[in-house]
Amino acid sequence: MIRVAILGATGYTARELLTLLLRHPELEVHVLTTRKDTRPHVADVHPSVRGRLDLVLENLSVAEVAQRADCVFGCLPHGASAVAVSELLEAGCRVVDFSADYRLNDPQVYAEWYGVEHPDPERMPETVYGLPELYRESIRGAKLVANPGCYPTAAILALAPLLKQGIVSPSGIVIDSKSGVSGAGRTPKPKLHFPECNESLSAYSVGQHRHTPEIDQVLSTWAGVETQVVFTPHLIPMDRGILTTTYADPISECDAEKLLEVLRSQYENEPFVRVVEGLPSTKDVVGTNFCDVTARVVRGKVVTISVIDNLLKGASGAAVQNFNLMHNFAETTALL
Amino acid sequence: MIRVAILGATGYTARELLTLLLRHPELEVHVLTTRKDTRPHVADVHPSVRGRLDLVLENLSVAEVAQRADCVFGCLPHGASAVAVSELLEAGCRVVDFSADYRLNDPQVYAEWYGVEHPDPERMPETVYGLPELYRESIRGAKLVANPGCYPTAAILALAPLLKQGIVSPSGIVIDSKSGVSGAGRTPKPKLHFPECNESLSAYSVGQHRHTPEIDQVLSTWAGVETQVVFTPHLIPMDRGILTTTYADPISECDAEKLLEVLRSQYENEPFVRVVEGLPSTKDVVGTNFCDVTARVVRGKVVTISVIDNLLKGASGAAVQNFNLMHNFAETTALL
Amino acid sequence: MIRVAILGATGYTARELLTLLLRHPELEVHVLTTRKDTRPHVADVHPSVRGRLDLVLENLSVAEVAQRADCVFGCLPHGASAVAVSELLEAGCRVVDFSADYRLNDPQVYAEWYGVEHPDPERMPETVYGLPELYRESIRGAKLVANPGCYPTAAILALAPLLKQGIVSPSGIVIDSKSGVSGAGRTPKPKLHFPECNESLSAYSVGQHRHTPEIDQVLSTWAGVETQVVFTPHLIPMDRGILTTTYADPISECDAEKLLEVLRSQYENEPFVRVVEGLPSTKDVVGTNFCDVTARVVRGKVVTISVIDNLLKGASGAAVQNFNLMHNFAETTALL
Amino acid sequence: MIRVAILGATGYTARELLTLLLRHPELEVHVLTTRKDTRPHVADVHPSVRGRLDLVLENLSVAEVAQRADCVFGCLPHGASAVAVSELLEAGCRVVDFSADYRLNDPQVYAEWYGVEHPDPERMPETVYGLPELYRESIRGAKLVANPGCYPTAAILALAPLLKQGIVSPSGIVIDSKSGVSGAGRTPKPKLHFPECNESLSAYSVGQHRHTPEIDQVLSTWAGVETQVVFTPHLIPMDRGILTTTYADPISECDAEKLLEVLRSQYENEPFVRVVEGLPSTKDVVGTNFCDVTARVVRGKVVTISVIDNLLKGASGAAVQNFNLMHNFAETTALL
Repeated sequence: MIRVAILGATGYTARELLTLLLRHPELEVHVLTTRKDTRPHVADVHPSVRGRLDLVLENLSVAEVAQRADCVFGCLPHGASAVAVSELLEAGCRVVDFSADYRLNDPQVYAEWYGVEHPDPERMPETVYGLPELYRESIRGAKLVANPGCYPTAAILALAPLLKQGIVSPSGIVIDSKSGVSGAGRTPKPKLHFPECNESLSAYSVGQHRHTPEIDQVLSTWAGVETQVVFTPHLIPMDRGILTTTYADPISECDAEKLLEVLRSQYENEPFVRVVEGLPSTKDVVGTNFCDVTARVVRGKVVTISVIDNLLKGASGAAVQNFNLMHNFAETTALL
Repeated sequence: MIRVAILGATGYTARELLTLLLRHPELEVHVLTTRKDTRPHVADVHPSVRGRLDLVLENLSVAEVAQRADCVFGCLPHGASAVAVSELLEAGCRVVDFSADYRLNDPQVYAEWYGVEHPDPERMPETVYGLPELYRESIRGAKLVANPGCYPTAAILALAPLLKQGIVSPSGIVIDSKSGVSGAGRTPKPKLHFPECNESLSAYSVGQHRHTPEIDQVLSTWAGVETQVVFTPHLIPMDRGILTTTYADPISECDAEKLLEVLRSQYENEPFVRVVEGLPSTKDVVGTNFCDVTARVVRGKVVTISVIDNLLKGASGAAVQNFNLMHNFAETTALL
Repeated sequence: MIRVAILGATGYTARELLTLLLRHPELEVHVLTTRKDTRPHVADVHPSVRGRLDLVLENLSVAEVAQRADCVFGCLPHGASAVAVSELLEAGCRVVDFSADYRLNDPQVYAEWYGVEHPDPERMPETVYGLPELYRESIRGAKLVANPGCYPTAAILALAPLLKQGIVSPSGIVIDSKSGVSGAGRTPKPKLHFPECNESLSAYSVGQHRHTPEIDQVLSTWAGVETQVVFTPHLIPMDRGILTTTYADPISECDAEKLLEVLRSQYENEPFVRVVEGLPSTKDVVGTNFCDVTARVVRGKVVTISVIDNLLKGASGAAVQNFNLMHNFAETTALL
Repeated sequence: MIRVAILGATGYTARELLTLLLRHPELEVHVLTTRKDTRPHVADVHPSVRGRLDLVLENLSVAEVAQRADCVFGCLPHGASAVAVSELLEAGCRVVDFSADYRLNDPQVYAEWYGVEHPDPERMPETVYGLPELYRESIRGAKLVANPGCYPTAAILALAPLLKQGIVSPSGIVIDSKSGVSGAGRTPKPKLHFPECNESLSAYSVGQHRHTPEIDQVLSTWAGVETQVVFTPHLIPMDRGILTTTYADPISECDAEKLLEVLRSQYENEPFVRVVEGLPSTKDVVGTNFCDVTARVVRGKVVTISVIDNLLKGASGAAVQNFNLMHNFAETTALL
């Protein structure tokens, strides 16, 4: 039985993670932390798990966590996360890190986009990016996995095979993403106040969203072509779900059938990617760990559309998928 | 041209009020206040009025407001409101007060439900309750009008005629109300965070909502029968609109037709109450100053259903209706 | 391995049922039916299960279904359902019937509320009502279970213990229920068109909803006191979830603590009822098979508030719970 | 007093139009038509106008309409609309046509995208496109105005000045649009059923939406550069509002300030276009006739974001603006 901890267990990703972990036969949730000292019961923080787990959230040191857990899911903010993660690894824990801290390889890019120096730069280039569809073999048995961002997951799964197969040009790619509000976290803010964002629609962080360099890096390194994307996220008045529409210029002639073929050949054995002919809705995947993806050619542009549940395939579902690979459990355990 | 001020102009009722006032031919919005010192432009606080009004929100003393305005709409919190209102009245301004401060007649009831002593108790019993359908003649020419609460408006318009005509018993009345989230104000709070209240439904303040004594008082005094209601508000995942379902015991035999007849006879000349035969939806009245109301008999209980836009007939629309009556303008000016 | 069929597998309850059944280790989904002849693939009808089940929906005779399945979940309309169910039972299948056909005991009450003669009246009084919290022992091993209505489930779980313990009077009980739109089914109708019911709120079927006699009967027979309720359903702009507020007159003195004690003592060993002190939100239970319930005394009225997911505890979750009991599997299998 | 008719008065654009027309001092709504023979009262079709207009919807011939109205707003489907419009014009009526029939100049393009021959091809090239910001002088006094599509309005107002000033290249422009559901009309359909599109997000008509040639044509002719756009509409779970994000390649060097300057210089005297520095939300314009627009440069791409209310600036508001210009009334009458 693997003893599991969640660091920073008050948010939506932690709630979704808990719900999945409670279905997992090979682990036990032992520790939940918070940086507050109020020691709330998990049922008060996440009413949906009431009666299923009798734990309080505790303000523990990393050392205390390491003593009580074999594997830790880190849901801490960037910066704080790397500090905790490096200590956990040294204490022998395995870690799935939800923060952005180990997703980027280059400390300078990190400093530029996150505005702080990385506290553990040596570990950056060697950490595996936890997208099993691209890096499954490196995830197997890994001690630390950087759980991907939600936007990068939806964008990369659509674009990576087309770039790698030389179907589309790496230059001038537009990624227009739309996300439900849970992606913005659980802390109340004016823009996320119900009567502000309900029945409304806006773009945000235009040209400045921190998932941009993450998408660049993964596409560039995996597909082997230097890629710089124009990424625009939009806030959609719904709880969860991401739909990403990408626009790219084809390098050689292609049509929808050719694009679908490339995607299918990439993903035919993947348990959680479904290449579809029709136009997917986020509702087809919300509540699941699936990514549905399709592609079209429109007036000479390659258009892809991919959908995920931002809290599952875009966060906690991916984390459990990574956990399973790290521990050599069946990859779909607790996810279907 | 009447010079108008809005005290506490940052919230949703102020925004709706502004939108109505900008259509009113007999007034000019001169002053907007806030308790912050940042002097934001109204277009930054309420983007929908951008380009239509060139004012900044100012942190002004009541004396300064009184110098620059003839009539003041007070959108301050209770307690603070009465302090400002009494000073404004003494300086010669007319006031429509959105707060609860002058709705109740009895300082002791106020202290009990609001938890503070009323700063201006003498004025309480003499202030008119600004529901034109019940108190039109007292509102005409009044210096101060207490603008009704949103829940009381919907409940009272349905129940008052039935009580007054002796159709239903004043004892054991149940008022089950459902409101959109804008009724809870513009300040971000965990419960009003989009992913918390979207796609969810809850009761709140059960047995403790401050609109309870307001409903009791108006029904009791206007209908002339001591009434104590059981009032339960619910939060509905939508921006605006209140639907109130009431349940009362009939005193004499009655059927739906009889109930509708009593309502119609009460409201036949009212510009903003529509007695309907079908079951009204909040969408029939959102964006308008109307209250739609109907009634049924179900297994011996009298059931009424009434709908309003909580920000219009339940707040800013009623305020303009009162403003029109106070200044002898056509009652529907700027409201149709 | 139990071979399972779903009759009428195109709706929302069938989709939720499928999602649960795919997690159940003791059965295999063998047959899905539709009354259309188009033979659509289940992935086209329910995109969320794409890749997980390779079946087409077929227009089969009951005899054909009986040959290929051991246990049948019937999602047919009332009337049609009883015809199929009686044939299935005679062919030796077990049946969980989602329709209302076997919920009522009295053919005359059925005829009155459903407007048709019951095709199988003899079986009505002997069929168990599938609410395990009240009738667990009769459900164990049963051949036919009448799966409860969504509104009755939420109302009965709150009221039944209070009636049985003589806490509240069976006369004059008001049940004010609010449901998400999935409860109205998957067939497009003007009132359920997105721009009609989104951001709107209405009561419907006031005094005429067919769940009324079902609530009456179960409360009357189980609690042993003749009960007639005033039931008003409301349509809430959200996908799923029911919140029911009830109002009843206490027979003896009581307070919230006493009420909670009665509820707790009734439900202390129940896997899917949680008696809570705070006010529950539908979001606490959506996606789960739980019913959360609380109670208060407000000005002399007993007020209960209960929440369920109308598609799970109110339909497909209850059906799986019943299936588990019928087959002597652990009651929570596939439900946590 | 201008006597006004609405042809096809059952939909959302007709309802919004009515609401505006009831505020207009220079006209009277005389005639409402429907193709059904049931003669419903307007209050039953559009409950929000109950008590404000006492008309029934009638199934009238065009000749009958022409006798009773001076100006006609046509809300008929394409094809049917041109047949009625040509007869109305010959009978001396003025017409604002909401359909697509007179928006395109080229009968062949029309046949290609709408799949039918145009019944009145001669009038196509000479009809003015009713976007006052581009064609105000031609609209003044016009007998027939083709009211623009909702998506074209949002896209053209953002892109036209940048194309005309030679800022962006006409080739490879991507228009990624997001619309509330009211844009899809009032007829119930499976995809628009509340539980299908609520809390979900999808692209539709990818590469095939009929607004594509309309955008091409207006941009090409007004800006004077042959333009072919890649247009992808998305359905957003909200009632109303369009947000359009466009991506174009700059021809010469530029930054956000330069782009805003071009937009401001184009629109500085426009009553209904607001060039904003921040990122606009649809909520800033819903319920108004405004278009808010901004622009940025992101990694070498010109990105514009524009928002409108699809039912107002995108339909009925624009129609009233056109009506005002056609009759030489102040352009903002009934629109502020």
